[in-house]
Amino acid sequence: MLGLMMDFPLTLSALLRHTERSHARQEIVSRRSDRSLHRYTVGECLKNAQRFGAALRTLGAKPGDRVATFCWNHNRHLEAYFGVPASGFVLHTLNIRLGDDELAYIASHAGDRFALVDKSLLPLFQKFADRVEFERVIVVSDDGSVPDGTLDYDALIADAKAEPFPDLSDENAAAAMCYTSGTTGRPKGVVYSHRALVLHTLTGGGPDLMSVSAADTVLPVVPMFHANAWGLPFMCALAGAKQILPGQFLDAASIVELLERERVTIAAGVPTIWLGILQYLDANPVGHDLSRIRFMIVGGSAVPESMIRAFQERHGLRIVQAWGMTEMSPLGSMTSLRPDRKSLDVDARYAYDATAGMAAPFVEIRARNENGLVPWDDATMGELEVRGPWISSAYYNAGEDAAEKFTYDGWFRTGDVVTIAPGGHITIQDRSKDLVKSGGEWISSVQLESALMGHPEVAEAAVVAVAHPKWAERPLAVIIPKKGCQPTTSSLLEHLSDKFPKWWLPDDCVLTDALPRTATGKLKKTDLRATYKDHYKPVPSTSA
Amino acid sequence: MLGLMMDFPLTLSALLRHTERSHARQEIVSRRSDRSLHRYTVGECLKNAQRFGAALRTLGAKPGDRVATFCWNHNRHLEAYFGVPASGFVLHTLNIRLGDDELAYIASHAGDRFALVDKSLLPLFQKFADRVEFERVIVVSDDGSVPDGTLDYDALIADAKAEPFPDLSDENAAAAMCYTSGTTGRPKGVVYSHRALVLHTLTGGGPDLMSVSAADTVLPVVPMFHANAWGLPFMCALAGAKQILPGQFLDAASIVELLERERVTIAAGVPTIWLGILQYLDANPVGHDLSRIRFMIVGGSAVPESMIRAFQERHGLRIVQAWGMTEMSPLGSMTSLRPDRKSLDVDARYAYDATAGMAAPFVEIRARNENGLVPWDDATMGELEVRGPWISSAYYNAGEDAAEKFTYDGWFRTGDVVTIAPGGHITIQDRSKDLVKSGGEWISSVQLESALMGHPEVAEAAVVAVAHPKWAERPLAVIIPKKGCQPTTSSLLEHLSDKFPKWWLPDDCVLTDALPRTATGKLKKTDLRATYKDHYKPVPSTSA
Repeated sequence: MLGLMMDFPLTLSALLRHTERSHARQEIVSRRSDRSLHRYTVGECLKNAQRFGAALRTLGAKPGDRVATFCWNHNRHLEAYFGVPASGFVLHTLNIRLGDDELAYIASHAGDRFALVDKSLLPLFQKFADRVEFERVIVVSDDGSVPDGTLDYDALIADAKAEPFPDLSDENAAAAMCYTSGTTGRPKGVVYSHRALVLHTLTGGGPDLMSVSAADTVLPVVPMFHANAWGLPFMCALAGAKQILPGQFLDAASIVELLERERVTIAAGVPTIWLGILQYLDANPVGHDLSRIRFMIVGGSAVPESMIRAFQERHGLRIVQAWGMTEMSPLGSMTSLRPDRKSLDVDARYAYDATAGMAAPFVEIRARNENGLVPWDDATMGELEVRGPWISSAYYNAGEDAAEKFTYDGWFRTGDVVTIAPGGHITIQDRSKDLVKSGGEWISSVQLESALMGHPEVAEAAVVAVAHPKWAERPLAVIIPKKGCQPTTSSLLEHLSDKFPKWWLPDDCVLTDALPRTATGKLKKTDLRATYKDHYKPVPSTSA
Repeated sequence: MLGLMMDFPLTLSALLRHTERSHARQEIVSRRSDRSLHRYTVGECLKNAQRFGAALRTLGAKPGDRVATFCWNHNRHLEAYFGVPASGFVLHTLNIRLGDDELAYIASHAGDRFALVDKSLLPLFQKFADRVEFERVIVVSDDGSVPDGTLDYDALIADAKAEPFPDLSDENAAAAMCYTSGTTGRPKGVVYSHRALVLHTLTGGGPDLMSVSAADTVLPVVPMFHANAWGLPFMCALAGAKQILPGQFLDAASIVELLERERVTIAAGVPTIWLGILQYLDANPVGHDLSRIRFMIVGGSAVPESMIRAFQERHGLRIVQAWGMTEMSPLGSMTSLRPDRKSLDVDARYAYDATAGMAAPFVEIRARNENGLVPWDDATMGELEVRGPWISSAYYNAGEDAAEKFTYDGWFRTGDVVTIAPGGHITIQDRSKDLVKSGGEWISSVQLESALMGHPEVAEAAVVAVAHPKWAERPLAVIIPKKGCQPTTSSLLEHLSDKFPKWWLPDDCVLTDALPRTATGKLKKTDLRATYKDHYKPVPSTSA
């Protein structure tokens, strides 16, 4: 027996029709390339988004055509972000931090016909653009001039007519693309459907998740080209929240200035950004009124408990950890979701806040090791598998190697090794490729790193698996000390000794002044492993 | 180009899997027929829901079979509410306040195979049950005994095995039914799909709508058989909120006791209930700590501004008005949605709170009069038409007369005559059949009633169209005075005179001590019109 309800497709154009009807007078603030602030309303933003859609049609764009963006977070990027999918095209955010070979591959593989590029990013763009068959390059300029052979975004939309977004009929049509930049293999294209992004917006913006309301002012430091800015632009559009876009100025002083001046209530970014802000606030403790901030969403890599404590105890600011992946639109889990969090004692609450939290509604989870699905005992490690309405079922025109990312029954293999607690909360133990396999048992490099970051003399820590003649692999800690500090191996190991089994402790700790990173700022452990691959030869007498 | 996201159906079984994983330890409190309180966890409730699904299968229920309920709001009704649709059957809530002829028609028309009935309601149930082909009647008893020929719910589920809800594959399958009880014509069956109820839950529970979170304690006074208790049971399940179910005790003292004792944060019910609670609180002003209440959701019929003011000013309690229909799952609009509400002055805020508010995301609205679609000018009246993912597209096995409820392009005609303001907020002027058509112009009986309710000597007011030889129809006010009061027509008309054009004012006001009501407590204006049909004959000399 079928329901007798309207067949109303879940599309971003329907979502934005609600925004235009209900929230047109809300404000959007955006930092220009000269640091000044641009202000206008959501209604004006949506009119420009409609004009950009119309202009693309005039340029010959057909439904489903890919439109690349190569931009910072600013209002005109947001116009494209809304206007491209809501007009029936496919928004393809290019990550400006990737190398030019990767970018050339990604834009070509996606078949991007059009590109929207910040004038300030043209030098980077030009390094790969001639290897891509872009038909038109549209330049976002703050000074009124663009290079020959390109189109000026402002002039283009000035000539176009703002008409209501069309009634798109297929909620499963592609709305956006984003490529994952793995440390191995070719980048893989994730294709988001309208339905997935609408459901991600409705669920992710809910009361116990990102809880975006019309009363909020939201600052996404996380770039729109990084996993959709975690869905915040559409959550803000749905709720009618004020958006603050930082442009290219992501230094701590610039961000703190915006947080304070615009009375931000929710901010979001990767741990590196927040580490910088923490150091800035510690160095400049007075004169900042950040009392409007309800919480900061931090994700992208594990947040050390020490950072969560430091923000709360020294600055009264709460960090909510989110875990997700590009393949998950990206939201998978959040620490704000645990209903009994408030009843935990302070230490237990911090310990919980340093986990990945609870899976969002409709994100189903399970973990598997070589013995099959693991019990939810908060102890047994397994690779996390997920399914849900905003999770990839395949990659765009991918090779056969991509099939191994999915199980025989259609779940996505995250590559994250986790433990799951009886109540369902997830602790990320490691990326599967970064686990240390010592004598057949798994050791979590992430847990060791997080604990080492709590040592008073440690600025940053990386733990990698190094080949070992007896145990196959043993952990090695690579440490950036805090300025003027010189922590000893014995002091570092002692700091770990009451937190982990003895056999988990690194056999050695080495000090360094820099760690290798990927284009997106993640630790590049492959490089570290290569550097230290012979560190445990000959067999050290201290082996566990 | 299609998206490459998982085909994950939006079903209530998937929603409840999240509830069981994340919120199993939350509490549900339910009042028994002896007034005592039953307490258990969401996890136990869901286990029983699974057992009921298994028991129905054992009794021969097939996917899509209808299971009727004839129950108050209590924990075992909730188990059926969850277990029937999540197990693939169709929950059909029967309204215990309807007449037995109507109930016999409705249950037969829906093809109900099974019925779940409160023991205390058996006398009502038996009045129509023999006219329906129920195969099994299952009785909810608080004293351990049930009549011969019926099954004991507790014994039935005690024998059944709790197994996880199945992966239902079709989100468009029927999940629940509810019949509308119009004042004219046969009742019509609304069939909710899983998809519609999931989307209604996600959207309606959002931050600026019912905003149900894991920290909330929710008391739905509105019955589950009345438009799905406005979606609150599934919103609470999704968020992990605590639910308080009042059983059969809906008197003000019993409700206030629950509000206070269980520290309720959100309550919901029709205006009649809240009028009773207001009178109770006015009469018993001290000794109640209702400070946990965030807001009361009031809907089902128009809420007079005077009641909203009285709660806020005398008791510090906020009323949020919701408008919807059985055909809309039911949520259409809420006053909490207006983003600039807080910036209005006090009088403007109350005036706004007495409207139907702003349409929910994905509920699209337009209004039409004899000249076509009306402008959004807050002045021109038209019948409201709606579309959206949780709105009926048809009635179950309906006759041809049902087709007129839909426009040629598939919008649902609500039968409510409204004005729409430029920002999109809706003011319900009247049911189209209750409008007064005076000299070709429309007069809103609802607006006149709402204003009359603000007169200090008026307890209740009804305004009806009465035939008039010159103007075709003229308004007549029928008034229940407050105890010991005897308001004069001139005082009543003077109270209205600065709020409406002169030609809107009733030609006469009559006093009475009771108003006719439908089974669901709504004013029965057809009866009033019949009673007073000759009131304006012969032509009164005072006609406008």
